[in-house]
Order: sequence, then C-alpha cells, then structure tokens
Amino acid sequence: MTINEISQKLLDAKYRSKLSFAQIGEAIGRDEIWIAALCYGQASANETEAKHVLGVLGLSLDLFPSLCQSQSKGLGPSVPTDPLIYRFYEIMQVYGYPMKAIIHEKFGDGIMSAIDFTMAIDKVEDPKGDRVKVTFDGKFLPYKKW
Amino acid sequence: MTINEISQKLLDAKYRSKLSFAQIGEAIGRDEIWIAALCYGQASANETEAKHVLGVLGLSLDLFPSLCQSQSKGLGPSVPTDPLIYRFYEIMQVYGYPMKAIIHEKFGDGIMSAIDFTMAIDKVEDPKGDRVKVTFDGKFLPYKKW
Amino acid sequence: MTINEISQKLLDAKYRSKLSFAQIGEAIGRDEIWIAALCYGQASANETEAKHVLGVLGLSLDLFPSLCQSQSKGLGPSVPTDPLIYRFYEIMQVYGYPMKAIIHEKFGDGIMSAIDFTMAIDKVEDPKGDRVKVTFDGKFLPYKKW
Amino acid sequence: MTINEISQKLLDAKYRSKLSFAQIGEAIGRDEIWIAALCYGQASANETEAKHVLGVLGLSLDLFPSLCQSQSKGLGPSVPTDPLIYRFYEIMQVYGYPMKAIIHEKFGDGIMSAIDFTMAIDKVEDPKGDRVKVTFDGKFLPYKKW
Amino acid sequence: MTINEISQKLLDAKYRSKLSFAQIGEAIGRDEIWIAALCYGQASANETEAKHVLGVLGLSLDLFPSLCQSQSKGLGPSVPTDPLIYRFYEIMQVYGYPMKAIIHEKFGDGIMSAIDFTMAIDKVEDPKGDRVKVTFDGKFLPYKKW
Amino acid sequence: MTINEISQKLLDAKYRSKLSFAQIGEAIGRDEIWIAALCYGQASANETEAKHVLGVLGLSLDLFPSLCQSQSKGLGPSVPTDPLIYRFYEIMQVYGYPMKAIIHEKFGDGIMSAIDFTMAIDKVEDPKGDRVKVTFDGKFLPYKKW
Amino acid sequence: MTINEISQKLLDAKYRSKLSFAQIGEAIGRDEIWIAALCYGQASANETEAKHVLGVLGLSLDLFPSLCQSQSKGLGPSVPTDPLIYRFYEIMQVYGYPMKAIIHEKFGDGIMSAIDFTMAIDKVEDPKGDRVKVTFDGKFLPYKKW
Amino acid sequence: MTINEISQKLLDAKYRSKLSFAQIGEAIGRDEIWIAALCYGQASANETEAKHVLGVLGLSLDLFPSLCQSQSKGLGPSVPTDPLIYRFYEIMQVYGYPMKAIIHEKFGDGIMSAIDFTMAIDKVEDPKGDRVKVTFDGKFLPYKKW
Amino acid sequence: MTINEISQKLLDAKYRSKLSFAQIGEAIGRDEIWIAALCYGQASANETEAKHVLGVLGLSLDLFPSLCQSQSKGLGPSVPTDPLIYRFYEIMQVYGYPMKAIIHEKFGDGIMSAIDFTMAIDKVEDPKGDRVKVTFDGKFLPYKKW
Amino acid sequence: MTINEISQKLLDAKYRSKLSFAQIGEAIGRDEIWIAALCYGQASANETEAKHVLGVLGLSLDLFPSLCQSQSKGLGPSVPTDPLIYRFYEIMQVYGYPMKAIIHEKFGDGIMSAIDFTMAIDKVEDPKGDRVKVTFDGKFLPYKKW
Repeated sequence: MTINEISQKLLDAKYRSKLSFAQIGEAIGRDEIWIAALCYGQASANETEAKHVLGVLGLSLDLFPSLCQSQSKGLGPSVPTDPLIYRFYEIMQVYGYPMKAIIHEKFGDGIMSAIDFTMAIDKVEDPKGDRVKVTFDGKFLPYKKW
Repeated sequence: MTINEISQKLLDAKYRSKLSFAQIGEAIGRDEIWIAALCYGQASANETEAKHVLGVLGLSLDLFPSLCQSQSKGLGPSVPTDPLIYRFYEIMQVYGYPMKAIIHEKFGDGIMSAIDFTMAIDKVEDPKGDRVKVTFDGKFLPYKKW
Repeated sequence: MTINEISQKLLDAKYRSKLSFAQIGEAIGRDEIWIAALCYGQASANETEAKHVLGVLGLSLDLFPSLCQSQSKGLGPSVPTDPLIYRFYEIMQVYGYPMKAIIHEKFGDGIMSAIDFTMAIDKVEDPKGDRVKVTFDGKFLPYKKW
Repeated sequence: MTINEISQKLLDAKYRSKLSFAQIGEAIGRDEIWIAALCYGQASANETEAKHVLGVLGLSLDLFPSLCQSQSKGLGPSVPTDPLIYRFYEIMQVYGYPMKAIIHEKFGDGIMSAIDFTMAIDKVEDPKGDRVKVTFDGKFLPYKKW
Repeated sequence: MTINEISQKLLDAKYRSKLSFAQIGEAIGRDEIWIAALCYGQASANETEAKHVLGVLGLSLDLFPSLCQSQSKGLGPSVPTDPLIYRFYEIMQVYGYPMKAIIHEKFGDGIMSAIDFTMAIDKVEDPKGDRVKVTFDGKFLPYKKW
Repeated sequence: MTINEISQKLLDAKYRSKLSFAQIGEAIGRDEIWIAALCYGQASANETEAKHVLGVLGLSLDLFPSLCQSQSKGLGPSVPTDPLIYRFYEIMQVYGYPMKAIIHEKFGDGIMSAIDFTMAIDKVEDPKGDRVKVTFDGKFLPYKKW
Repeated sequence: MTINEISQKLLDAKYRSKLSFAQIGEAIGRDEIWIAALCYGQASANETEAKHVLGVLGLSLDLFPSLCQSQSKGLGPSVPTDPLIYRFYEIMQVYGYPMKAIIHEKFGDGIMSAIDFTMAIDKVEDPKGDRVKVTFDGKFLPYKKW
Repeated sequence: MTINEISQKLLDAKYRSKLSFAQIGEAIGRDEIWIAALCYGQASANETEAKHVLGVLGLSLDLFPSLCQSQSKGLGPSVPTDPLIYRFYEIMQVYGYPMKAIIHEKFGDGIMSAIDFTMAIDKVEDPKGDRVKVTFDGKFLPYKKW
Repeated sequence: MTINEISQKLLDAKYRSKLSFAQIGEAIGRDEIWIAALCYGQASANETEAKHVLGVLGLSLDLFPSLCQSQSKGLGPSVPTDPLIYRFYEIMQVYGYPMKAIIHEKFGDGIMSAIDFTMAIDKVEDPKGDRVKVTFDGKFLPYKKW
Repeated sequence: MTINEISQKLLDAKYRSKLSFAQIGEAIGRDEIWIAALCYGQASANETEAKHVLGVLGLSLDLFPSLCQSQSKGLGPSVPTDPLIYRFYEIMQVYGYPMKAIIHEKFGDGIMSAIDFTMAIDKVEDPKGDRVKVTFDGKFLPYKKW
C-alpha cells in the first residue's frame, strides 16, 4: 500500500497528537471510522469539516482542498497481504455465498449498499480473550425490474 | 463459482422443501449462517449433525461423510463478480486500512480471528428502505512476541 | 464465457422461435434488456414471470425454479475478449475518471447505482452509418457520513 | 491511479478557478466530458484548443504541447477499485452479454465504436433520489466480410 | 485453448476433405482468412454462406445456426503460449508504441479499426528462406471531438 | 507505460524539431518505423547511427551509449489499455488461431520470425475514410526436427 | 521487494555493526526472528523495545515511532521470485493439502494460527551437508460452530 | 483444487477404512506426511510401496502405476483460499524476508532444499489450547560459484 | 496441466510398453526429446513418422492425424508449480538478464531461436551426486535493421 | 525491469571500461556468467571478490558491502517481455513436460538443482548462421522418502 502524501501527514500528526480517532471524531461530530476513512483518503469532507480536522491535528488549514476533492478510492492489492485485512477478505471468500443465500432468502434479489452504509467497531471484553465486534449497516437495494 | 455436487444436492433439496436456513437450523440447534456455510461446503459437521440436516432435507443419510470430511474452503474468483459479494470486497478495499487503524488503536497489534468467529445477518425494517445489518464477532488475537 | 445449461436452453429456444427479445418482453410486460439479462442468468424472475417466459419459448414450465433462484452474477473474464463487450470496458478505462469527475461535480461524492438501474439500447438511423445509443439510468447514491 | 503531472496541474488549476467542466467547455465550444477527458490525458487537443483551455485556467500557454501529443490512453488497474468507476465495470460484467445479444439482434454482427463516439451525463431530479443518466452514442461498425 | 464443438467438427471435416481454406473460400466467394475465422467461431455467416460451407465440407446442413448466431469472440489466454501466435503479441509489445507514434503522425489521434478490417497472408519465396507477409487493412477512425 | 529518460528526451526533441520519423530516417538511411522503435528503446543502433540521430535532433552526442546498449524490450502492461495498441492485441485474440491455421497450411509447422522482420505502415486514401495499411514481413522458421 | 526507509536504515546499521540478529535479540530479551521481523517492518515493538533496538544499532532514538505504529504487513509479490523464499512457497503448493489432511485428522476442522505463533531456525551440522531446521509453533484454532 | 481421480479413490478408501495416515504409514514403514503426499499425488512410490498402500486400503493392486509415474506437482491456486493453507502462505509473506536474512546470516548465500527435505507435524497439548508444531528439515544448498 | 486425450494415450502406451523415449526414438530415427515433445503435443510429425510411433507403441495407426495437425503449443500455468519445471523458470528469472548481457556482448542485439533449435539432456555420473546436463542449441537471430 | 542502483553503476562502469564479462572474470578467477549475475545483483561475492571486481571497473572499493549482502533475487515480470529472455520462457512452456518426462526416466523422481548449478554460453560459428549453445549443469536431487 502506498498512501498519498496528505494521508501520511494526517496520520503522522495524529500520532504526535496522541488523539484517538474517536477523540478527533467527537471534536467535529463524526464517528471514529469516518474520521479514519477520511485520513486514508477514502471519504471526502466539506470545507468546514476539513478545516476542523486540520485544526484539531495542528495542521495548516490551507490543506483543506485535499480533503474535499474527488479522489480515487480503494487501497492496496487485489488480494490483501496484511493479515488483519486479509481476514475480512477470507470471510468474503468463505462466507460470501452463504451470506448471499441468506440475504436473498430474507430480502429477495438485491444487495447491501456499501455507499448508503455505516460501520462500527467495538471492543467486547471477555475473560477468555477480548472480542472484536464489527457491525455493517447498509441499505438493502433490490434489483429493479423494468 | 462451481460448487461441488453435494452442495448442489443440498441447495436443491432446500429449494424443494421450502424451508429457510433458519428453519433447518432450528431443527438441529444451529444458526442459519452456519447451516448455509455447511451447505456450501465451507463448514464441517459431525456425524450426528450431518445426518440431522440430511434427514430434514429428505436426503439419503448415506451422504453424511461428505458433510464431515476435510475439504478445501474458499469459493469463487479472487475478485468476486457477483454484485452482492463484491460489496463486501469493496468494503475491505475502501475501509480495510481505516479498520486496521481503529483496531490497532483499540486492541494493539493483532487481528480479528475469522476462525473463532460467528456472524449474524439481520433485517432492520425502515420506511426509507429496509437495511441489512451484518455483525461479525471474532476473537482478538494479539501478535505473540518471543 | 461458459453460460449455464438453462441459459443455453433459453437462447436456443429463442433462436428457433425467431422471436426477438422485445417480442418476448412484450408478451410478459418487461423490457427487452431485462429479458436478455434473465436469459443469461443475470436477473431473477418471480414464478409467474418465469413460467410466462418459458411458455412463450415453448419450454417445459417445470424449469421455472432455475429462473427464480439466487445465482452468482457476472460473466466472462476480468478483461473481456469479445470486441463488442471490450468497447464498454475501454470506455470505463478511458473515460472512467473523467466521468467520476463530472458526476462528483454535479452530484457530490457518491456513485450511480448499478442495482436501482435500468438501461435501454436504441438504433438511431444515420445516412453516414447507423448509431448505437445506450442509456444508463441509475439512482445517485451519496456516501453516507456518520 | 497515477495521473501524469500535466493532468495534476490542470485539475488543481480547475479547483482553484472554481470553474466547472461545463464552464470551461463553453468558453472553447466543447462538451464538458471532452474537457474532462482532455484534463485526464485521455483526449488530445489542437494547438488552438489547448491554448484556450490553458488560458481559461490561468496556466502558462507554453504547456500546450502536452495537450496535443500522442499519449498512452487508459487509466487505473484492470479491475477498478474506485466504487463509482467499478459500477460501470459491473454493468459490463453483468449486462455485457445481454447487451451484445440485443445489439446483434438489432444491428447484426459488429460493435458500437468507442472512437466515433460521444457521451453525455445528465442529472435527472427525482423526489425519491436524483438519478444519473449516462448516454453513449457510438457508430455501429459491422464486421467486414471479405 | 478450448475451441467449441462446432469448430472442432468443421476443422476435422476440413482435414478429412484435404481442402485448403482457400479452396473452401473459392467455392463460396470468400477469402481464406475469413473462412478460417468462421471455422474458429470468430466470424458469423449468413444462412446461405453457412450452408454453403457445410455442404463443401460434407457436414449436415442442419448445423447452420451455429455459424450464424452471436457468439463470444476471442480465443486463448491473455498472453498466448503458442509460439506462432506469441510472435504477434511480441510485435505489439515491442513495436506497439512506435506504431502508435507513426499512425498519430500520419493520421492524427485515432485508431486503425479491427472491425472495418481485412487481412491477407502471403508466402513470399526467398532462396534464403521463405517469408511470411501479413497485411492488415483497417479503416482509420479519428477520435470524435464534441 | 513508463518510457525511460532517454526515450523521453528523444521524443521531446523530435516534437520541438517538427521532423517526422520519416525525415529523421531519411537523414540516416533507415525506415521510419525502425527510427520510432529506436526512440522508444526497442531497437539498438551502432555508434554511427546513434550519433547521427542525436545530431539530427540537436541532442548531445555524448548520449550515444544509451542508444547502443543491450536493454530490456517490451513496453506497457500485458493487456494494453491504449485503444490503438489494443486493436492489434484484439487482432491476435480474434484472428490468432485462424492465422496459425493458414500459416500451417501454407508453410508447415513453424512461425513467422519477429526478429528477422520488418514492418511498414502506409496511409491509403479512400473517400469513405482513409485506411491504415500495416505490412509485416518476417522470415518463416520451420520447427527443427532432430 | 521494496522495503521502507526505516527498514533500510535498520538493516544498514546492523550490517555496519557486525551484530547478528541473535546478538541484538539477546540485548533486549527477544528472539532473533522477532528482531528480523521487526527490522523488516513485519512486527511492532513497544516504545521501550524500539528505543533499545535503536540504541544497540547506534541509531537516533527519535526514530522509535516508526517501530511502534500500525503498518501494512506482507512483503514481495504474490508468488515470490527469490529462490530461498520460493522454496517455502513450493512447500505450501506441494505439501499444503497433505498438511491440511494431517492436521484435520489430528485436531479436527481448524487452522494453525499464524498470529499466536513463534518460529525458530536452527543449523544442524551434518557431514553430508548442514541442514536447516525450521520449527513453527502455532496455536490450533478450531472453527467455531454456532 | 481439483485432485485427480486416483487421489480421490485413495482418500475415499482411507475414510472408509478409518485408518489414520500414521497407521497406513506404519504398515509400510513410511511417515504419515509422506503417505498423505502420496495420496494427493505429490510423491511417487516404487511398485512395492504402491501395492502395499493399495492393499492396506483394500483397493485393486492394478492401480499401482498411477502411484509410480511422473506427474505434475503443485495443487491449488497461486494464492490459496483455504484458511489453513493460507496461514502457511501468510507466514511466507510476513516472515519470508526475515527468514532469508537469518538463514543468510547463519549459512551464507543459499537455500533450504524442498527436495532433500522431510517434515513432521506434532500435536502439543496445552491447557490454554493445543498447539500445532510443524518442523521442516531441509539440506542447506549453498550457491555454487564458478 | 491437462494434457489432451491423444497425449494421454501415447504416454499410457509408452508406460505399458516399458520402452524409453530413446528406444522409441531409435526405432524411427529421432531424438528422445523430440519424441517426448511429440507425445505431449508440442511437436508435429509427418504421416510416416506418426504411423511409425503409433506402431511401436501398439496403438491404432488411424490416430495418425492427431500427431500431424497444427495444434496450440504451450503447457501449464504461466508460472509453473511443478518443482522440476519451476527450476527452469527460476533460471530464467535469476539468470535471464545476465544471459541477455552475455549474448549481446558475444553476438550483438538479437535472440537465440527456440524454433531452429535442438536440445539434449544427459546424465553425468558423479560420486558426489549425479548431475543433469542440459544443452540448448539454437540459431542466433540478429535483429534486422531496415 | 528496474535494476538497483549498484547494478546500474557496475554496468555503466563496465560499458566505459570496454571490458567483456569474460575479461573481468579472468581478472578475478571467475566465469563470465557468474560475473554477469553478480553485476545484476543475482549472486553475492565475498569481500575479496567484491573489491577485486570494483577495482577492475575503477569503482570505489567502499561499495563492496552491496555486493556481499543478502538480497532478493529474481528480475522482471512473471512472464518476460524481452524477446531474448522470453525464448527461454517459451522453451520451459513448450518443452517443460517433455524434459520432466526424460529426467524422470533417466534419474527417477526429483529435480535438477538451480543452486548447485553452473551455466555456460558459447558461440558456435556456422556458415548458415552462428548458433548459441547454452549448457546447464545442475546436481540431480532425488525426492527424499521418509
């Protein structure tokens, strides 16, 4: 993965600031995941949001256009090599068709939107080992017949 | 995707039976997604479970070994072409690094297990369009230092 | 491309019947492209529609479940070799980013849905050579911020 | 996607100028999409057009040769990762063979040209959500028999 | 390469008949290369031509629809392994950009059509070793500006 | 495609000089295509030829070793994205096996050399649209039996 | 393989220091392989460990954040070209399914963790040629049924 | 993965026999992993060994040539999708260069042979979860200088 | 690798006959490697040679056309998985550019033909382990300048 | 192919020195191919050899560590585009399985080592065109049974 220059600046500034994504998000009224997506160039902010984030991280407000413009989304190789990200790819490989069958059964022919979509990541403490809970919430879009 | 012969038999029998995955699951005390994964050859049952599923679907109990043996997991091409499954791939492409950053921040260096793992898919009714809610629940595994 | 057995049956029956996709569509009240998509296993019908199409083509009505079930969508290799289909791939390669920039400018950050979507193909007669007019009509989906 | 240096200059200048592609196009008598294609290095201008565009964007007219020379066309990876562009790829995957069958039926064996070709993108307002209307207009080219 | 069943039948019949492609072509008034393309499923005939070819090769005339219908074009892997065909791929790899530069210089921005296109292969006898002469003749298509 | 630095210098100098490849070729007694291949780093000159070309283009003669040394040949991705170059790839995909069959029929088992090889590109004026005529002339090499 | 800048600094400093990975490891109480993984950016240290390693190698302690942050793991192409690394890939290709069958037989359906995992590489002297002994020690993770 | 017919026969017979790979190995004096490799067509036996294995599994001794002939080795796709096998691929991706550095440091420039090679898989019981211990033992082969 | 039906017949007959490739070659006056290439469908015989080989192997002479016709050459995946064949691929990866530099230095810009080409494989006995000696003998083909 | 900086320095110095690989090799008692492999970063020297080569080429002796360290081997894309190198790839594609069958017949199941390996390239003068003779000499390694 090569992330672009502005992403690198945002992530370095965040590291130095010792702020969590959640803390940055609270400051501007957005979720931690949306903030992380913005930092990696995967979401775009409006001018107010962009300047707010830059201010919280102590960066020059002049950088705001980089956070607002249309940019190519999608990071990394088609099969991820990073083990954490690979596990989500593996879930799609192993459970993809079972999930499709279940969604078809419950909703009919269509998809879960990845655009009209939010996500949450929670830490569930457990004495046998903490658990990661990931929740996807996407609008069901039925195939249009015409 | 080419699914193997036993999967095709299970899915055809399920279609004829008009049973949902959830109904099959209730009959043998397992979740609908695990049942779907079993039907697609992505999970393996013990002999009792295998015979139970075959019986519910009206198939010969002699088929049980096919549901119990070790088999190669993972379906379909490295980049899925089916739109429903592609959306989960897209989430990994777009949100993968943001998710990694959040998990690293909350848990440290490690992964969410895709093995010590369960999943649920729920339908959330919404007047603006129903929503698909997918929940992943996997154990956090920290990298061992030695 | 290998199309599945039921698709081959539908296309062979259509050839023998000398019916156009439009004529089949008229018979059941659906557009020619949706009919073509159904024949290639890329759309799914309800039981009534399925039996109607089978009847028009003189095929056994018992085949209807194959036209109704969830199936994997997406045909052919990742880069198409057929020249007609390649041209649409080429348009995406050459005009993809310009189209993204125009859509971003007019609508903001988001996508054109390929699910809440219809398409038409028209023949425009022209003395210098007839022209193919393809119209895509898809709902704009803005990225959700949260 | 890595766009070349001159493209980056043109897009940055456009952002600063707050001009839309349509406004630049009006100034020189060309469509907004052709302008966008030119900015991304996917079309080539003559010297007059090139200088006109550079002038409108406040860039040095000496850059004109970069807008006129032969250059390699085609951007991005063979399967796009950007969700907006992917949807056009998905349409080709899902509807490619149905479209081929319809065009063959209406025109005979041949293709829609992607060279003798124009495109338009319109915003269709709709209370249930605005729609993107994309129109391709390409000459039909029949296979020559010899 | 896997060629389809009808192609195999045509090629086997041709081998048994000891007719050359040119002789088959003469019988029906078409060039040898077009005949070869038809045999490999890369061109489509009208009913008269199809029956003529089948008759010359002593095959059942009932096979004619297979020679007339729309079918997916393009054979073999994306990089050919057959040495003869690879050499044409190598020419494209080595001389592709030089050819583009020459064509751009002579014609302007555009392409040589591979559809409004004919080809000839001649044997040029030479005491130092016979030479293969391949001639491509395609219409120049300039990029449309709009 | 990324061409190397010396190629970029040669092509820029050619653009400034307003000389065609043919004019450069005449000056040193070589064909325009060979000159273009040399400029793209796909052919190698001897010292005299190299200095001659550099002189014609007004570049420093000290650059000559770059035009003489062994260098890796082959440009661009395995499937070209540039539409002009893609058409030659498409010809190989569509007509490759027919061409192989014709050559086998006329010459026996072997190949057309891409090394003992020359090429010409001519413009054939035509009121219905000018045509590109490409001629390949390569030695036939029969497979050696031993 | 392109390793990042900090990795290059660590490896160069190690070369100059003539310390082995084992000696660096002893200094900070970690195994030689973990140290090597850290140097290649494949493991992450805490601040104390990071500064300790930097000190041993005579590098600026200010570099420590680079050794602690979340970074993308996985090096090199999907099929390795380096012969030493390829042999491990080959073992997976040749012995992968046999290993899966043995592990399934001994443990049931599940995997060996590559996260809760340590490795050792030993030199076993042998008059017929020394042998490399590689030991993987990973926790067995059974697939969860739910 | 598609395993060949004889492998499928051996694995089915083994399943019916309820013998472990180790028990089959004991009967003929070979290790369990070599037996598993033989069953998957990745090792070749001599006639005595082949007949012995067939006899133990109750299969026809006439099948022995299939266990003795040269056959193509290597199973599955270049990046494995099966989670158990993928973990070994991941180890090569993540730890490959660190392993190379350690082996180079201990042995010099060369490789661990995957041919003059044996492997063992042991179950190490552990109250916190059993562990898989995999041991590779391969001859070190130094690069020859000449 | 999937070899075609006629190849499988030839190889099975050879196994039953207990003849070596060299013995078959002697019977018809051809080298063992050419015979092996013929058996794998990589070389083509004339009618006399084809019948001779079929006779020696006790197969029906009616099969001769399969050994004489033009067929697609090249076996297996683009990167071989079989360890023996991979080693030759590895030699090309590791020593390819060094070989090119040496050949360029000794012969000038050109290639070693793989068509006007023979090969031999010899066993050189050696107390430290027998050695495989492979000799390629191909005509040098200089790039034509024109 | 991108070769690293030190390789570029060595090759440039060699070009200026007008020394052949053989002459450099004579100076330090090594074969021309090993010298070429060293220059391309595919072999590693000891300190004495490294300094000797640097001295012969008039380069700073301080560069020696770059010639001695472990580095990733393998150059260029998985399918080579350079015609000279491609021919060796083609030999592997066309003759790979025949070679495997011959080696299996002569030696049993195993491989030719590419590590305990030397190579020679000779020019054989021939009035019909000089020939390239390439000799590989590698130790046979039988698969270990255990």
